[in-house]
Amino acid sequence: MTKYLLPWPIGGMEKGRKNQITDVPGVKVGHCTIDTEDHKTGVTVIMPSADCLFTHKLTAASFVLNGFGKTLGLLQVDELGTLETPIALTNTLNVGLVHDALVEYTLISCEKEGTIPQSINPVVCECNDGNLNHIQQRVIGQKEVFAAIAGAASDFDEGDIGAGKGTVCYDLKGGIGSASRMMEIDGKRYTMGILVQSNYGALQDLQIMGQAVGKALQADPTQQDQGSIIMVMATDLPLSHRQLRRVLTRASVGMARLGSYIGHGSGEVMVGFTTADPHMAGQQAIVPRGMLEESLMNIPFRAIGECCEEAILKSMYFANTVTGYKGKKVASLLDAMKERNLTL
Amino acid sequence: MTKYLLPWPIGGMEKGRKNQITDVPGVKVGHCTIDTEDHKTGVTVIMPSADCLFTHKLTAASFVLNGFGKTLGLLQVDELGTLETPIALTNTLNVGLVHDALVEYTLISCEKEGTIPQSINPVVCECNDGNLNHIQQRVIGQKEVFAAIAGAASDFDEGDIGAGKGTVCYDLKGGIGSASRMMEIDGKRYTMGILVQSNYGALQDLQIMGQAVGKALQADPTQQDQGSIIMVMATDLPLSHRQLRRVLTRASVGMARLGSYIGHGSGEVMVGFTTADPHMAGQQAIVPRGMLEESLMNIPFRAIGECCEEAILKSMYFANTVTGYKGKKVASLLDAMKERNLTL
Amino acid sequence: MTKYLLPWPIGGMEKGRKNQITDVPGVKVGHCTIDTEDHKTGVTVIMPSADCLFTHKLTAASFVLNGFGKTLGLLQVDELGTLETPIALTNTLNVGLVHDALVEYTLISCEKEGTIPQSINPVVCECNDGNLNHIQQRVIGQKEVFAAIAGAASDFDEGDIGAGKGTVCYDLKGGIGSASRMMEIDGKRYTMGILVQSNYGALQDLQIMGQAVGKALQADPTQQDQGSIIMVMATDLPLSHRQLRRVLTRASVGMARLGSYIGHGSGEVMVGFTTADPHMAGQQAIVPRGMLEESLMNIPFRAIGECCEEAILKSMYFANTVTGYKGKKVASLLDAMKERNLTL
Amino acid sequence: MTKYLLPWPIGGMEKGRKNQITDVPGVKVGHCTIDTEDHKTGVTVIMPSADCLFTHKLTAASFVLNGFGKTLGLLQVDELGTLETPIALTNTLNVGLVHDALVEYTLISCEKEGTIPQSINPVVCECNDGNLNHIQQRVIGQKEVFAAIAGAASDFDEGDIGAGKGTVCYDLKGGIGSASRMMEIDGKRYTMGILVQSNYGALQDLQIMGQAVGKALQADPTQQDQGSIIMVMATDLPLSHRQLRRVLTRASVGMARLGSYIGHGSGEVMVGFTTADPHMAGQQAIVPRGMLEESLMNIPFRAIGECCEEAILKSMYFANTVTGYKGKKVASLLDAMKERNLTL
Repeated sequence: MTKYLLPWPIGGMEKGRKNQITDVPGVKVGHCTIDTEDHKTGVTVIMPSADCLFTHKLTAASFVLNGFGKTLGLLQVDELGTLETPIALTNTLNVGLVHDALVEYTLISCEKEGTIPQSINPVVCECNDGNLNHIQQRVIGQKEVFAAIAGAASDFDEGDIGAGKGTVCYDLKGGIGSASRMMEIDGKRYTMGILVQSNYGALQDLQIMGQAVGKALQADPTQQDQGSIIMVMATDLPLSHRQLRRVLTRASVGMARLGSYIGHGSGEVMVGFTTADPHMAGQQAIVPRGMLEESLMNIPFRAIGECCEEAILKSMYFANTVTGYKGKKVASLLDAMKERNLTL
Repeated sequence: MTKYLLPWPIGGMEKGRKNQITDVPGVKVGHCTIDTEDHKTGVTVIMPSADCLFTHKLTAASFVLNGFGKTLGLLQVDELGTLETPIALTNTLNVGLVHDALVEYTLISCEKEGTIPQSINPVVCECNDGNLNHIQQRVIGQKEVFAAIAGAASDFDEGDIGAGKGTVCYDLKGGIGSASRMMEIDGKRYTMGILVQSNYGALQDLQIMGQAVGKALQADPTQQDQGSIIMVMATDLPLSHRQLRRVLTRASVGMARLGSYIGHGSGEVMVGFTTADPHMAGQQAIVPRGMLEESLMNIPFRAIGECCEEAILKSMYFANTVTGYKGKKVASLLDAMKERNLTL
Repeated sequence: MTKYLLPWPIGGMEKGRKNQITDVPGVKVGHCTIDTEDHKTGVTVIMPSADCLFTHKLTAASFVLNGFGKTLGLLQVDELGTLETPIALTNTLNVGLVHDALVEYTLISCEKEGTIPQSINPVVCECNDGNLNHIQQRVIGQKEVFAAIAGAASDFDEGDIGAGKGTVCYDLKGGIGSASRMMEIDGKRYTMGILVQSNYGALQDLQIMGQAVGKALQADPTQQDQGSIIMVMATDLPLSHRQLRRVLTRASVGMARLGSYIGHGSGEVMVGFTTADPHMAGQQAIVPRGMLEESLMNIPFRAIGECCEEAILKSMYFANTVTGYKGKKVASLLDAMKERNLTL
Repeated sequence: MTKYLLPWPIGGMEKGRKNQITDVPGVKVGHCTIDTEDHKTGVTVIMPSADCLFTHKLTAASFVLNGFGKTLGLLQVDELGTLETPIALTNTLNVGLVHDALVEYTLISCEKEGTIPQSINPVVCECNDGNLNHIQQRVIGQKEVFAAIAGAASDFDEGDIGAGKGTVCYDLKGGIGSASRMMEIDGKRYTMGILVQSNYGALQDLQIMGQAVGKALQADPTQQDQGSIIMVMATDLPLSHRQLRRVLTRASVGMARLGSYIGHGSGEVMVGFTTADPHMAGQQAIVPRGMLEESLMNIPFRAIGECCEEAILKSMYFANTVTGYKGKKVASLLDAMKERNLTL
C-alpha cells in the first residue's frame, strides 16, 4: 500500500497514508503509457472527484513562475476560480489532441447527467519529452486519454510512467512523483497532496538533503538547466481562489531545495484545487463558503514545500533508466548513484 | 438630501437614495480642502464602516488599468484580500505624508480598542493637480487628514472640493463625483456606490450621452489625454476578492462612454470593498463567508459601468470654474457650455 | 479594393488604404467557413509575416480583460514576449484540434527551412458560436486550418465568414471585422490594424455613434450581455512587449463606446504583435531593438480605440442574417434596422 | 576592501571585486542608523547612478512573491518599466515619511538641472523591525534619508546597520547583506549585484550549505516563519523590463536554499534595474535599446540565485547580537553558533 516511500526523510510534517496525491479523499490518478522504440511518452490524468466535475466545479487556481510552456486552460481557472474537467498531463506537442479528448470526455460525462455543455475548459499541462520521445508525431490521442481516465485509481505508480515516461530531470530520468502531508487545524485533519511531472534541472546543480549529489556524480558543468515542471496540488482544506494561489506560489521551494535555480528552458506551472464546497448550478444567489483564517496559512505553505521537494525526488527515485528515440539513454538516479558507488 | 442629481439620465438601473457612495450602509466620506492663491488641493477620505477597520478588515481588491500613478497600499490589498484603513485621496506628491497620517490615525483608533498594531497598510490614491496647485509644496499633512476624517458624513459635497479641488478633467474642471445603483438579487436589495477623483481626458474627446460635447466646445485638437482617475467602489453585496476584482475591471467602461481612450498620462486605479462579512481576529479556523453565485455577476458589472459614467459626469457638473496657481484658470463644464450656448 | 467601408465616421485618425489589418505590411488573413444546416462555424488565420514565424519570431503580448475563455498559448507569449505561429480564431470547443493543426503546419514550415522544432506554442483564440452552430461536433480540423492558411491574402472578407460565421454580437449577427489607422511619428508613417471576432453584448445596450440603436430596435431588456470578443492587433511600429501590452489594455474602449459593459459571459482577449525587428536564432548576444519613446504612446492608444470600435461595427455591418443549427435565426444589423425603418 | 567575505563557499560563479551590489559600476549605497534604547532602525538607500535619476531614468521591474508588505512605488515601475528615484529601505510604519523625503530629494536634485518635476514616483521598501524597534514612533524622517544619501559610497557596511539595524532573520539577527557575481557574455563582462534587507524565517528551518543549522541550534519548533525580505538587484547587463522581471522571479531560490518555505508573515519583494541605456527626455521617437538574447537568460538566472543566497547569509554573518526595545535581545548567528559550539 505504501510502496512509494523514499529511504530519505524529507521535511518534518506527518505524511498521508500512501504519501500520494490520492490521500486527498476522492482524488484518483490514471496513466496511459506509450513505450515503443520511438516513443516514450504518455498521459497522466488527475481525477479530482467522483462527481461529474462540469456540474460540480471545484475551487481552483494556478500560478506560473515561468510561462515558457504550453499549459492550456489557466485563463478561465483564474478568472472564474473553478476547475471543470480532470487535469491531464502529457507531452508538449500533444496538448491540442489531449484538450480535444477532454472535451469529448466531458460531453459524454455530462450526457449521463442530462446536460449538454456549450463551453468546456479543459486543463492540459505538459513537459517536453523530446529527448526520449519522437515528440513531433503526437501519439497521444483520445484513446490514450480515455484509457488513462478508465484506469484512474487511488493507488497509482510513480516514476517513468504515463506523462513521465520520457521526461528528464537533472539530466537523470524524471517522471511522475507524488507526496502528501497531513494538516491538523482546529482539531480537524486535512490532507494536501502533490503530483509532479518532472523535467527540469542540470545535474551539476542537483542537491539532495543538502548534499551536492550532482557534483558527486561528476556532472558536466556546461549542461544547462532546461525543461519544465508541472505541479498539481489537491487538498480538502477549504481555501478561496486567492488562498489557493498563495499556496501555489510556494511550490517552487521544493525545486530550489533540490538545487535548481529555475532555468529558462520551459515552464514552471502550478495548478491547485480544493475538494471542499463544490460549485453547483442552481445553488442559491449568495453561496455560503468556507475559507481558512488567513493567519493559519503557514500550515499549507509549509506543506506544499515539503510535498514538492519529496514528490520531485520520488519521480526520480522510482524511475528506471530509459533508452528512447534514436537510442538516447537516460540513467535513473539510482543507477547513476550505483555506478559511482554513491550513497546518501 | 438629493442635491447632487444630474439633469441627464445615465444608465437604466435604479439609483440609490442620495446617488452617492454613502448609500452603501455604513460608508461615510469627508473632505478637507486647501483653497489659497497658490494651492488648490485637498484630501478626501472614504470611511468604509463605523467599526475600527484594522480590527474589522473588509474584503477588498484593486485593479489597475494604467499604472502610471503613485497609489500606495495595493500590494497587500490584493495579497490578503482585505482593507484595514480608510481610503484617502489626495495630490500626487502628497501621498507619503497622507500615508503617514493614516498610520497615526490607525494607531489612535486601535489604542481605543486596546490594540497596538505593528504593521499597517494605508491605501492612499492620488491625482496630479499640479495645473492649479503648487504641488511641489505638499500642503496636506496629518492635520488635514484628521480634519477630513472628523468631518466624514453620509452626505458630502461633490465637485471642486477635497482631493478634487485642483483636478482637471477633459480640460475642464474635474473633481469629486459619486453615484450609486441598487441591485435586487433573489429578493434582497444591495447597493453599489462609486466615488471618483477625476483628472483625465482631452476636451476634443468629451462625449456626453453620445453627443460630441468636446468638439462643440471647440476643443484644441492638439491637447493630449493626460492625467488619471481614481475610482473607489463600495458595496454591501457579498463578493469574494476575485469577484470584487472582476467588477473593478469593468469600471473603465464609464470613461470610454464619455469619449476617453485611456491616455498615457497617469494612472487609472480602481479600489473596491464589500462591507459584508468583516474579517475579525480570533475568528474560527474555517471562516464562513458568502459570495455571489457567479452567473449573477452581470448585475454588479452593469452597475459599475453606470456608476462610473455618472460619477465622472457629476464630478464635472458640480464643479465650479477655478483659478489657481500662477493664475491658471480652468472653466467648469457648465460655464464652458454657457459660453458657447450649448445645451444637451 | 476598399469595399469594406462603413457609411459612418468612426474616430478622427486617418485610415489605412483598405481599412483592414492587412494594411500592416506583410500581414495576411485567410478564412475557411463551414456552412451546412447544422454547422455555421469556421476558422480565420492571421499570418503575421511572409517569413517562417518559428524562425523569425515577432515581439508580441496579450491582455485579458475577462478570462472566461479558452484562448490557448498566451502564457508563453507573455513570458518570452514573442509569437512563433500564425494566430488562429475558431469556435470554443474546437481549439484543441486547431492547436494541433498549427503544430503540424509549423513542423511542415520548419522542415522547408531545415529546422525540426521540439517545442511549438500555437496561439488559438475562440468565441462560442453554439447559438448557430452544432458546436459539440467540432468540425474544424487540420484540413480546414490548412485551407484557411493557403487562402490567406491581403484582401479578405468581413462579416459572417470564417471564425465569424456563427457568432452573435448584441443579439444581432456578428462575425469578423477589421480596421486600420495610420500613425505619423517623427516623419515616418506606421500602421495599426485590428481584426475582431465579435460575439458579445445584449441588444438593449447597443449604441452606435452615441445613438441608442438597441433600444430603437426594441431590444428585449431581459437579454444578458453574453459571449466574448477576440481582438488581434498588428502594427509595424516598434514597440516593446510592455508597450504592446499597454496598447492592448485600451482595446476595450471600442466595446464600451458601442454600449457594452463587458459582461460575464465569456472572454475578452487581446493579442498583439509588431512586425518590427523579428527575433532570429543565432543573433548577437545583445540584440539591438527599437521601442517607441514612452511619451508618444498616446498615438497608438488613440488608434486602438478607434480601430476596435470600427472593427466591431464592421463585423456587424457586413454580416448577413444567418439561420443555423435547429433553425435558429439571427438577424443582421442592417436587416434589423430595415425592419424597423431605422436609419443612422 | 573585501572585508565582507563569508568563510563559506556559496555557488560557483565568479564574485565581483567587493562581492557587493556596488560592484555594478555607478551604484552606491548609504545608511543612516538609529541606535537608541527604544529604537533600532534606520534607512538604507541604493543610489543607482551618479546621474539625476529623474532625468536619466533606468529600465526597472519588480516581482512580488508575497504581497503582505507595504513597499511603495511598484505600480509605476512596472507600467512604465523605469526607475526615477533612488530606492530606500526602512521600517514598515516609516514608509510614508521616507517617501516624502525622496520627493523632496528629487525636487532638489532636479532644481540643479533646471527641471521642476510635477510627478515623482519614489520606491520605498520595508521590513518590520517592531521586535527590536519602537516602530510606532516612526523616527526616520527627511534628515535621516538625506544623511543616508549623503553618505552613499561604493564601499558600505553590512549586518545590523541602516534599515537592517532592527530586523530579525530565522529568529537570529538579520540586517543588510550584499553579494555580486560576474557574467561573461560574448566576450564582455557584466556584473549583477544584490542587496537584501533580511527579516524572515523561523530558526527551525535554517539550513546553511545543506546543514540543518537551525535544528542544531535547538530551535523552538512552534516558532513561525514570519517577516519579509526585500531584495534589490542591480546590473549593467542590458535587459528589457520583461527580462528583468524574469530574473527577479528567481530571487526566492536563495531563500529556499537556506530552508525557508516563504511564510505568510510579510512581503517578499524584489526590485531590479539595469544601468544600461538610461531613458532621457528629448530622445528620438524610436529609441534604440539592447536586450539579452533570450536563450542566454540562464546566466543571470543562475547569478541571482547565488547572489540572494549569499547576500542573506552575509546579512546574518556580519550582524551583531542586538538588544532593543523593551530589552528584547536577538542573538547573532555567530554568537548563537558559539554558544552551542557549532561550526560549519
